[in-house]
Amino acid sequence: MKGIVWILAFLSCIGANAQSEDSAMMRKIADQVLSSPAAYENLRVLCKNVGARLAGSPGMLKAEAWGQKALEAAGADKVWLQECMVPNWNRGGKDEAWYSIKEGKNVKKTALDILALGNSMGTGAKGLLLPAILINDFNELEARQAEVKGKIVVFNNIFDPKNLNTFRSYMESGAYRRQGPSLAAKYGASAVLIRSITASTDNNPHTGGLLYDSAYPKIPAAAMGLKDADELIAQLRAGKEITIFYKSNAGFQPDAVGHNVIGELTGSEFPDRYITVGGHLDSWDPAEGAHDDGAGCVHSIEVLRALKAIGYKPRHTIKVVLFANEENGMRGGHKYADEARAKGEKHVFALESDAGGFTPRSFGFSLPKDKLRNIRAWVPLFEPYGVTQFADGGGGADIGPLRAALGTPIAGFNPDGARYFDLHHARNDVFENVNKRELDLGALNMALLIYMVDKYGL
Amino acid sequence: MKGIVWILAFLSCIGANAQSEDSAMMRKIADQVLSSPAAYENLRVLCKNVGARLAGSPGMLKAEAWGQKALEAAGADKVWLQECMVPNWNRGGKDEAWYSIKEGKNVKKTALDILALGNSMGTGAKGLLLPAILINDFNELEARQAEVKGKIVVFNNIFDPKNLNTFRSYMESGAYRRQGPSLAAKYGASAVLIRSITASTDNNPHTGGLLYDSAYPKIPAAAMGLKDADELIAQLRAGKEITIFYKSNAGFQPDAVGHNVIGELTGSEFPDRYITVGGHLDSWDPAEGAHDDGAGCVHSIEVLRALKAIGYKPRHTIKVVLFANEENGMRGGHKYADEARAKGEKHVFALESDAGGFTPRSFGFSLPKDKLRNIRAWVPLFEPYGVTQFADGGGGADIGPLRAALGTPIAGFNPDGARYFDLHHARNDVFENVNKRELDLGALNMALLIYMVDKYGL
Repeated sequence: MKGIVWILAFLSCIGANAQSEDSAMMRKIADQVLSSPAAYENLRVLCKNVGARLAGSPGMLKAEAWGQKALEAAGADKVWLQECMVPNWNRGGKDEAWYSIKEGKNVKKTALDILALGNSMGTGAKGLLLPAILINDFNELEARQAEVKGKIVVFNNIFDPKNLNTFRSYMESGAYRRQGPSLAAKYGASAVLIRSITASTDNNPHTGGLLYDSAYPKIPAAAMGLKDADELIAQLRAGKEITIFYKSNAGFQPDAVGHNVIGELTGSEFPDRYITVGGHLDSWDPAEGAHDDGAGCVHSIEVLRALKAIGYKPRHTIKVVLFANEENGMRGGHKYADEARAKGEKHVFALESDAGGFTPRSFGFSLPKDKLRNIRAWVPLFEPYGVTQFADGGGGADIGPLRAALGTPIAGFNPDGARYFDLHHARNDVFENVNKRELDLGALNMALLIYMVDKYGL
Repeated sequence: MKGIVWILAFLSCIGANAQSEDSAMMRKIADQVLSSPAAYENLRVLCKNVGARLAGSPGMLKAEAWGQKALEAAGADKVWLQECMVPNWNRGGKDEAWYSIKEGKNVKKTALDILALGNSMGTGAKGLLLPAILINDFNELEARQAEVKGKIVVFNNIFDPKNLNTFRSYMESGAYRRQGPSLAAKYGASAVLIRSITASTDNNPHTGGLLYDSAYPKIPAAAMGLKDADELIAQLRAGKEITIFYKSNAGFQPDAVGHNVIGELTGSEFPDRYITVGGHLDSWDPAEGAHDDGAGCVHSIEVLRALKAIGYKPRHTIKVVLFANEENGMRGGHKYADEARAKGEKHVFALESDAGGFTPRSFGFSLPKDKLRNIRAWVPLFEPYGVTQFADGGGGADIGPLRAALGTPIAGFNPDGARYFDLHHARNDVFENVNKRELDLGALNMALLIYMVDKYGL
C-alpha cells in the first residue's frame, strides 16, 4: 500500500509539474499575443491595402502577395505558394433592382438594395421586368409550382433569431440561397430574390454562393437587404400587383491560377509530421472580408508569430495555410488534401478559424471520442483565456478534405456567434467592425491549442 | 434497501421532472426575449430621445420619465419613484487643452482631446498655462515629489492589455483617475492629466469620477485620448520643454432631487419578499450611456416584460430598479438600502447588470459558499444560453448597500469584457455600438436566473 501511495503521489506530482509548466508557457504565449499589435495590424493592411479578394480577381493576387510577406515577417522558416486552378466568377458591376406597385392609374416605384448571389448568372444587359410571386418556404413552392412560371420568386426565408446557435439559422435559412434558385427554376421561375441570410438590424444585402442543379436552367438570383425585403414582402402579402426589375451582369470567366499561401515553422523532432492551422484568403467582393476570413488568416499567422517570438521550438512542423477559394469552390482545401495524399504526408492535426474574429467560446473537434475525452482534461487550462468547452464535432471547410483524405483529426475555432451573421458576406464586413482584443483572444487560444497538440500529440 | 432504492429512484425522478420543466420554461423565456424587439427598442429610445443623463442634469429628469413609461409598457403591476438627493456636477461646456514645445525660437502647439474627470473642479475662466512633468506611477511621484510643485502632472497610467480580466486593468489604471489628482496635489501640483482608462485603438478620451481627499487642494484633472497621450508622453520622455494649457469650467451646483425608478411584478405567494433586478439610470455627459448603463436598465426591464409576457406568476415580488446616480455618488443605491432597512423589508436576492450589453459569460455571486455550491447545479441549464459559470464574488455598486444593510445575497451579470473599456465613459458609448442579439442574450440569462431564484429561493 505504502509503495502505491508513494507512486501515486509521485505521478500526481509529475502531472502537477507538467500542468504548471504548461500553464506558465500558456501565460507566456498569451502575454506575447495580447501585448502585440501584429494580428490587428496585419488585418488592417489586408483589409485596407488589399480589400476584397474573390478567387480569380486582381484582389486575389494582391492578397497572396500580402500573405507571403506577412508570413515572412512573422518569422516562418519557409514560405511558399501551392498552385491550384480557381473559378472566376465576378459581379460585372453594380446590381440593380426596383419594384413597382400598380394601384389604379398610379405606379409607385421602390428601389431594392440587392447583391447578386455568388455563382449566379446575369440577367442580360436589359435586365428582367417580371411579375413577382411571394413563396414563404419550399413546401409552398411545391404546393404552388404551377404559379411560378415566368415570374420572379421572392422567398421569405426567415433567419430564426430563436436558435441559440446562429449557425443553425444560417444553415436553415441559407438553404434558400443555396438550393432556392434551382428549385424555383425547376418549375419555370425566371429569377429568384431571397432575404439576406442574417437577422441584422440594418438593410445591407448579404451575398454568398448558390449551387445550381445542372438539371434545371441557371436562373439569376440575388439577396435583398432585410428592411427592403420586409417592405416588399408586406406588399406582396397584402395582395398588391407587383412587378420587379432586376439587372445583373454577373457571370463566369475562365478558371484562373490561384494559390494556397503556406508558411511553416519546421519541427525539431518530427519535421515530416504536420500540424496545420489556417483560414481562407479569399473573400466576397462587396467588402473587406475582415471577419470572413481575414480574421482566420491573421489568427493563423499570429499562432506562428507568437510561438516563434517566445522562442518555442515545435516538435512537429507547424504549417500555416491561407487557403484559396473557400467561398465558391473550395479548390484550395482540396488541393492541399490531394497533394498531402499523393505525397503520403503525415498530418497529425488541422485547425481552422473561419467563424470571425470574435471573443472565444470553444473549439469543436472531429476526432475519436476517446481522444476527445482525453484532451478535455486540458479545458481548465484554457478557461482563463475564454475557451470553456471542447465540443464534439467541428472543423472547417478547407480542412474537411484533409480529414476525408487521410483521416486527420481536425478542429474548428468557435468564437461567439452573436454578431457574425450581421456582417457575413455584406458590405459592413470591414476592419472597423473587428475589435483588437477579441481578435487577439482568438489568436491566443488557437496558439494555446497548437502548443498543447504539438507537445502531447492527439 | 429496496425501499431506499425506490425512494431514491422516486426522488431522482422528481429531480428529472423538475429539471425538464425548468428547461422548458427557460426555453419559453428565451424564445420570448430573442423574438422581441423590446429591449433593443427601449435602448434606442433611451439613447436617442434622452441621451446623456448625469445626476442633476435635465437628462436625468427625461430619463426618469422614460423609465416609468418603459416599465408600464413592459407590464409592471406598479411603477413608482423613490426620491433621493443627488449631487449635481457639470462640465460647464467644452474642455480645452493643448501643449506647446519650445525648440530654440520655434514653438509648436498641439491640441489635446481631453475630458475633465467627473467631480473635478474647473480651472477658472482663464485656464492654466503651466509646465508639464511626466510621472510614470505613484512610486515615481513619491520619489520626485519635490519637482511637481506648480506643474501639470501627466500620469502615464497604462491599461494593461495582458490582464485576462479587463476589470482588473480598469481597477489598476483607474487608481490614477480616482486618487491621482489628490496624491499629486499633496505635493503641490496644480493640475493632473491622465491617460484614459482604456486600451482602445481610437483617440476618444474617457471621463469617470475622481475622489478628492479633503486634506489637499482640489486641483483640476482631465483624461486624454490615448493617441494624444502617447504623443505627449513620448515628447516628455524625450526631454522636451513642454507647457500645457488646460481650461475647464467644471464644478458643482447645489444637490438636486433625483429618483430611483421602480416597477414591480407583485408576488403571488410572498408579496412582501423581494427580488431586485436593476441597473443604473444615470450616465456620463459625453455620450448616450448605451452600454453604461442603458444596457443594464433595459436588461432589467426586459426581465419583467418577458416573465409577464409568458404569463409567469412570480412567487416573490420582483422589483426592477433603475438606480439614480451610480456614477458620481451612488445615492440611489444607498437610498434603496436605507429605506429597505428602515421598513424592515425582506430581500431574498438582488441582481445588477452594469458591465455592458455584451454576450453573456457568467454571473458572479456574493452569498455563502454552501449556497453557491447548491445553485451551481443550475449551470448546465444556463450553458446553452451562454452563461457557463457561476463565479464566487460579484454584485454591483447599486446593490452593494443592500447587502451591507441586510445581508441580502447579491449577484452581478458578467458579460464578455473584451470591448467594454473601449467605450466606457467615452463619446462612442452610443446605441450603434450595441448589438441587438448580444443585448437580448444578456436580458434572457438574467430572466432565467430570476426565474430560478424565484422558484427555488436561495
